[in-house]
Amino acid sequence: MKKGKATIHDIAEKLNITASTVSRALNDNPRISENTKKQVIKMAKQLNYQPNHIASALRSGKSKLIGVLVPTANRNFFSSVVRGIEEIANELDYKVIISQSYEDFEKEVQTVDALLNARVDGIIASIGKNTDTFDHFKKVLDKGIPLILFDRITNELDVSQVVIDDYQGAYEVTRHLIDQGCKRIVHLTSPKKINIYRERLRGYEDALKEAKIPLDPDLVEEGNMQLEDGRISMEKIIRKGVSFDAVFSSSDYAAMGAMQVLREHKISVPDQVKLAGFGNEPFTSFTAPPITTVDQKSIPMGRVTAETFFELLKSENNKKATHKTVLKPELIIRESSLNKS
Amino acid sequence: MKKGKATIHDIAEKLNITASTVSRALNDNPRISENTKKQVIKMAKQLNYQPNHIASALRSGKSKLIGVLVPTANRNFFSSVVRGIEEIANELDYKVIISQSYEDFEKEVQTVDALLNARVDGIIASIGKNTDTFDHFKKVLDKGIPLILFDRITNELDVSQVVIDDYQGAYEVTRHLIDQGCKRIVHLTSPKKINIYRERLRGYEDALKEAKIPLDPDLVEEGNMQLEDGRISMEKIIRKGVSFDAVFSSSDYAAMGAMQVLREHKISVPDQVKLAGFGNEPFTSFTAPPITTVDQKSIPMGRVTAETFFELLKSENNKKATHKTVLKPELIIRESSLNKS
Repeated sequence: MKKGKATIHDIAEKLNITASTVSRALNDNPRISENTKKQVIKMAKQLNYQPNHIASALRSGKSKLIGVLVPTANRNFFSSVVRGIEEIANELDYKVIISQSYEDFEKEVQTVDALLNARVDGIIASIGKNTDTFDHFKKVLDKGIPLILFDRITNELDVSQVVIDDYQGAYEVTRHLIDQGCKRIVHLTSPKKINIYRERLRGYEDALKEAKIPLDPDLVEEGNMQLEDGRISMEKIIRKGVSFDAVFSSSDYAAMGAMQVLREHKISVPDQVKLAGFGNEPFTSFTAPPITTVDQKSIPMGRVTAETFFELLKSENNKKATHKTVLKPELIIRESSLNKS
Repeated sequence: MKKGKATIHDIAEKLNITASTVSRALNDNPRISENTKKQVIKMAKQLNYQPNHIASALRSGKSKLIGVLVPTANRNFFSSVVRGIEEIANELDYKVIISQSYEDFEKEVQTVDALLNARVDGIIASIGKNTDTFDHFKKVLDKGIPLILFDRITNELDVSQVVIDDYQGAYEVTRHLIDQGCKRIVHLTSPKKINIYRERLRGYEDALKEAKIPLDPDLVEEGNMQLEDGRISMEKIIRKGVSFDAVFSSSDYAAMGAMQVLREHKISVPDQVKLAGFGNEPFTSFTAPPITTVDQKSIPMGRVTAETFFELLKSENNKKATHKTVLKPELIIRESSLNKS
């Protein structure tokens, strides 16, 4: 026996019977004699065969595993969504396995294969920033395996989706900065095609328009959304010599980078420049000053995503009219954006 | 056909042949006629059967998946170890799936089952804080499935292990604080039985002994290691009214909580009290002042762990003399522990 993983074929070989007899015996099929059943069960134990796992999964098509594909699990937002998914899944006796794409398209494709290889009953995914073709997800749908998207979504797949209202979140942050007297608001955004940054940019623009503040393209800086990218973007803005009285970053990490650069340039936050991020990463409450941000309701998002998933799983042939759930984000106002009272 | 997942039994039923004939046909067994093979392959395609996945994995006992069990993926340390594991695994065309125990014993047990259910070729695990029996891991070994432990280990399992020298890391931090003139050093530690906190406590104690500074049990505070726990422990120390000139926390999160409480009590870091954490979480470099800490060499740890895993996987019957690899940590000195120059 090889590598400790016995199959029904190993049991069949040892007992000199057919694999289907073994399969039927393990399934307690009435056509198999009690004696054969006993022998099969004894040999299965002897060979350390896992009847409840592989065999029953192959039989029923159920592994009771949900594969969750995220760009990275080391982001409070994604890990909290996963936690929300697990809360619902565990109640239903399902387990969650996670796979990361690291925002790399090739890895994302391979990761989908890996989850299929793990025989998951369905996939819940958030798309990488660099993904613009979706054949790897179409393959999942072609196999009849349930697929739900959250946060990073695409309209190119006919699947149910769960998002927060990124537009509304960004609109409210910008509105808040305007209410604090800011008129020259820098916006750090991503050049990536992904829906979330597009929507946040739109929220920023509409809040300015509504307040009759002219849009200045010089104040919108594109870059990746990590801490280092926020540093680079902030340096660019300062070097341009444009005047500004606030920074709204589409990510908390870039906001943190921007705040470091402002500090290095002796520009005081919030006295001279107000600052806000997006995501409510835990560190935003640790910093001095704590950073205003938008909470993305990640645990509720995970729960709703899992509920949507299980509705689909329970439906006839895993087919169900697709729908989009939009959750309300929450503006968290902290010292970084407030006038001293 | 149910749920889109065809099995060899579905193919067998459609063609009115036995499942073992289907299996043999898919394996290109010479005892099966070319005509039957063609029919089976045609039906397999028609039913969207996945021959490269389930069947070949059952056949070869190889899913090319490694299951990684961590307390939480949302900690820079664990996610970096996973990244190191993936670097090596991907080179060898293996994929990694992650499962979280959330430091919950019951979940840890179920998670091991979930990984087995996903037919992983082996498991790399870091044990939860509340785990003190190991039958769920013994089951993995009994099945002949390779198991490697990292960071949170136990001597109750005869498996290879990869750790950093927690003792050395803590010794060096404490030494550094003593070199800065500190004599009354608070230590925040965990009551949990887990090896890492025990070793760090030992490093702290030995550095004090060596410098002939008496150990004061009043300065050692036990608590969990999250931010909130650091806050609670620090409040306790302050309420006790004992004098102290430094805080060394066994976790960066608890160090951050302690720093917040010190700030609220108008105790200046580093002027009045020096502060150090453990783990080199990214936020420790964001804070004002940035926090001295110990880098756990997480990516190298992941790479070494994966290399140890693959050595075991390639060995005869997955059996190999077990060994422990101990990596050197790195002291990262920042403003929070330095005398102003």
